[in-house]
Formats: sequence, C-alpha cells, structure tokens
Amino acid sequence: MIGRLNHVAIAVPDLDAAAAQYRDGLGATVGAPQDEPDHGVTVIFIELPNTKIELLHPLGEDSPIRGFLDKNPAGGIHHICYEVDDILAARDHLKATGARVLGDGEPKIGAHGKPVLFLHPKDFNGCLVELEQA
Amino acid sequence: MIGRLNHVAIAVPDLDAAAAQYRDGLGATVGAPQDEPDHGVTVIFIELPNTKIELLHPLGEDSPIRGFLDKNPAGGIHHICYEVDDILAARDHLKATGARVLGDGEPKIGAHGKPVLFLHPKDFNGCLVELEQA
Repeated sequence: MIGRLNHVAIAVPDLDAAAAQYRDGLGATVGAPQDEPDHGVTVIFIELPNTKIELLHPLGEDSPIRGFLDKNPAGGIHHICYEVDDILAARDHLKATGARVLGDGEPKIGAHGKPVLFLHPKDFNGCLVELEQA
Repeated sequence: MIGRLNHVAIAVPDLDAAAAQYRDGLGATVGAPQDEPDHGVTVIFIELPNTKIELLHPLGEDSPIRGFLDKNPAGGIHHICYEVDDILAARDHLKATGARVLGDGEPKIGAHGKPVLFLHPKDFNGCLVELEQA
C-alpha cells in the first residue's frame, strides 16, 4: 500500500540556523523559507536526490508544532510522510486493522496541495505518520 | 555534499508488532529480522521504492539503542542516514564548520558493511544524523 517516502519533517527552533547547518555543514540544496499560514508553519524544503527534508518552524499562535517544540526545545523529527495511491482506501484499510486516524478521519489538503491524513503515533512506534495521496 | 537519504531508523519496543503494523496495516514489504551482534541490534528492513525504513530492536546488554528506548518506551525515530561520496572529506568539512562528530571521529563499518559516522544531535536540531559512504 505505501509507496515512496515523500518527506521527513524536522521541527526546528531556529529556521535560519537549521538552514545554515544543512547548506553550509551538510552541503545540501536548501530552498527559501515559505510561509504556510493555513498550516501554521514556515517551511524550508531540502531537496535530496530521492526524497525531501522539510524543516518546520511555527507560524502564528496556533501552530500545530508549537507543542512539539515546547517538549523538544532543541527540535527533532516531527513526522514522516508516506505516499499512497488512494487515501480513502488506505484509511479504511488501516482502521480495519485497528490503527487510529487523527482528527475527524477525513483527509485534509496538506502543505503540498494534496489530501493527507495523520496516524496516531501510539500505533506506529511513537512515530507520527502522515499519508499523502500522491 | 550529502546525497540520497539512505534510511530512516525507528527504534521499536516490539519488533514483531512493528513488523505487523508495517506489513498488515501499511501494506509495506517487510523483511525478516536480522541479528547484527556487532551493532547490538536486530534489524528489519522495509524497502520502499525510493529508500528504506529500518526497524531497530536492542540485541544484547550493551545495545546502543537501549537508552533511547528507556527514554522513549513506545519507540521513536532514532536517526536518519544520508549518503556521502567521501566520508573523510565530509567529516573534515563538517568539523571545520563547527559540527561535532560522535566517538573518536574515525569512521566505523556500519550495519551495511560501509564506513559510517554519527553527528551530534545538538548540532542538527535534536536529530541524530548518520553519514554513510555510499
């Protein structure tokens, strides 16, 4: 069912510092910061040959990653995103196997303009999993 | 400098349960458990079209992931691994930019039989970074 690893998202306390670490230290191709007010984050995309890293920083008071950074002030990996062909079929299959879908269970339009869902970390080894319809 | 994302490693408290979640819930291709006594882990590889997920479980008393699971009993993402062409050049460049290499700074032979180094999580947004010479 799951296909490609679409991205690894890393919440960072200082976006400029994180961009510099990846650009100057790791020599990666680091994009410009993009505000995504609908998702409460500012994002920097790092394009690797086979996938992406997304550096996330809170934007606005209701950012969904604010709590994560409060608990992890140095930052940390926030979620990983797998692609699926049919997000509703994936959701229904996962629910049938006992996995919990966060929120009301209906896909939302994610930061890439595609339908996404998040799965409960307790069902996946403490790891927040995003599914994105590719 | 960094190339492909080689893998995302997830430490799991119950390898059988984690394998079942990925195989039956997420419909992924899940390999058989492999003991790696030299690295103190039992590993299950999950092959995605563009990269790998490695489920890690402690093997033996001195496992390097035992402390992580003590702190994160439900499991969690333990590290991410980027490929580099020349690990010594990468190390020297990173040290020159102020990043800290764990251990004595000399590459070890990793779980894939290739030279690896780990970078200090405090220099990379709370994220443990492995470099592997591809």
